Amino acid sequence: MPSIEVCYSPYLIPQFELQGKRVVVIDVLRATSSMCVAFQHGAKEIIPVGSVDDAMKYRAKGYLVGAERNGMAIAEFDFGNSPFSFMTDNVKDAKIAISTTNGTQAIVAAHDADEIWIGSFLNLDQLVKELLAQPKDLICLCAGWKNKFNLEDTLLSGAIVDLLLKSGVYTTDCDSSVASQLLYSEAKTDLFKFLDRSAHRKRLAALKIEKDIEYCLTPNQCSVVPKMINYALRLN
Amino acid sequence: MPSIEVCYSPYLIPQFELQGKRVVVIDVLRATSSMCVAFQHGAKEIIPVGSVDDAMKYRAKGYLVGAERNGMAIAEFDFGNSPFSFMTDNVKDAKIAISTTNGTQAIVAAHDADEIWIGSFLNLDQLVKELLAQPKDLICLCAGWKNKFNLEDTLLSGAIVDLLLKSGVYTTDCDSSVASQLLYSEAKTDLFKFLDRSAHRKRLAALKIEKDIEYCLTPNQCSVVPKMINYALRLN
Repeated sequence: MPSIEVCYSPYLIPQFELQGKRVVVIDVLRATSSMCVAFQHGAKEIIPVGSVDDAMKYRAKGYLVGAERNGMAIAEFDFGNSPFSFMTDNVKDAKIAISTTNGTQAIVAAHDADEIWIGSFLNLDQLVKELLAQPKDLICLCAGWKNKFNLEDTLLSGAIVDLLLKSGVYTTDCDSSVASQLLYSEAKTDLFKFLDRSAHRKRLAALKIEKDIEYCLTPNQCSVVPKMINYALRLN
Repeated sequence: MPSIEVCYSPYLIPQFELQGKRVVVIDVLRATSSMCVAFQHGAKEIIPVGSVDDAMKYRAKGYLVGAERNGMAIAEFDFGNSPFSFMTDNVKDAKIAISTTNGTQAIVAAHDADEIWIGSFLNLDQLVKELLAQPKDLICLCAGWKNKFNLEDTLLSGAIVDLLLKSGVYTTDCDSSVASQLLYSEAKTDLFKFLDRSAHRKRLAALKIEKDIEYCLTPNQCSVVPKMINYALRLN
């Protein structure tokens, strides 16, 4: 039976065996949520890059570019890190390069895995459906905040663990899976209110993006699961 | 107001600022529990060492030695990792060198902190009493299991966070503190039963040390808080 593990920080990834496994990268606020929205709106491919400089190199090749540092958009770029910035006409069929504080760094950290998929609350049901259709040892990799644990990514991991364990198709012997599932069961009746306690939520509150947060915590707004194929995220 | 952070793995320590801070090292099953018991029974000093070879060097200098790897005692040594092995007459006034899988590694990882204290459920009330008497920015460092998150160390962190926040003397803006406190509030009515879900508990069950586990989860059996002073743990 395939197993589930949860990794609370990209910095902890060297402690996990990645070969033979599928990694679902999770950065709820907001990188992986925005990536799901971009594909839902017709994006053709997304290249996650580690630095703003790398994003600029892709711009020179005709890519649209998005970047964010410390929660703020970078002014001269085509997109910020808000999911709403990807709900525009120019997203359709676009090739996009994105660099963010935590999310794309997590994708880069997972490069030794067999497969890298993108998860968010926005694509939760579709993600679980595909994980059940193609069972394989799974690591939920939380992007966290600057290499530290955060609550929102843990809660999505907990939701995934909960659905997969209840299916009877997956198992776990990982304490962080157990803890994530317990925290999710505490939080699920009102994720937004629960995250009032979150440090990152407080950081983002200062940026006046409450609307983004509410949207990113709303399950099942997208029916896509972006996957890393030949160094780019694509749908197939 | 002094702040509380929780670090879920010694491997994550480079992500935390240690200068100016006090670190409480936590390895509930069983290193820091056994250290508390040793001091409660009159030990004079304990040197935490990183390897079994280093422990042997201290033996040559007249120290008693304890060591464990993967939960098992090493036969030729004076102590294993069971708290009960330190409840003997030869502990009184002894100088002891200890190496364990996770606990002493965590102590070594915290060496840049201003102060290193030792925590366990066994000394919980005394620990919190001293933390309140000498307020200072605090990191609860969970030894974890081979650099990964574990439940039992998280629960003790949660108990410490809970008592310190309720005192009104400490504050936190750290998501792992919030998560630990929530998990502890779920678990506190029956820690032993709660940890049935824990992976490490299952590993230890195979070693037939249920009695050790029950004891290590029993608060306030010891009235000592070992502290690192000049490279050795002492009471003062």
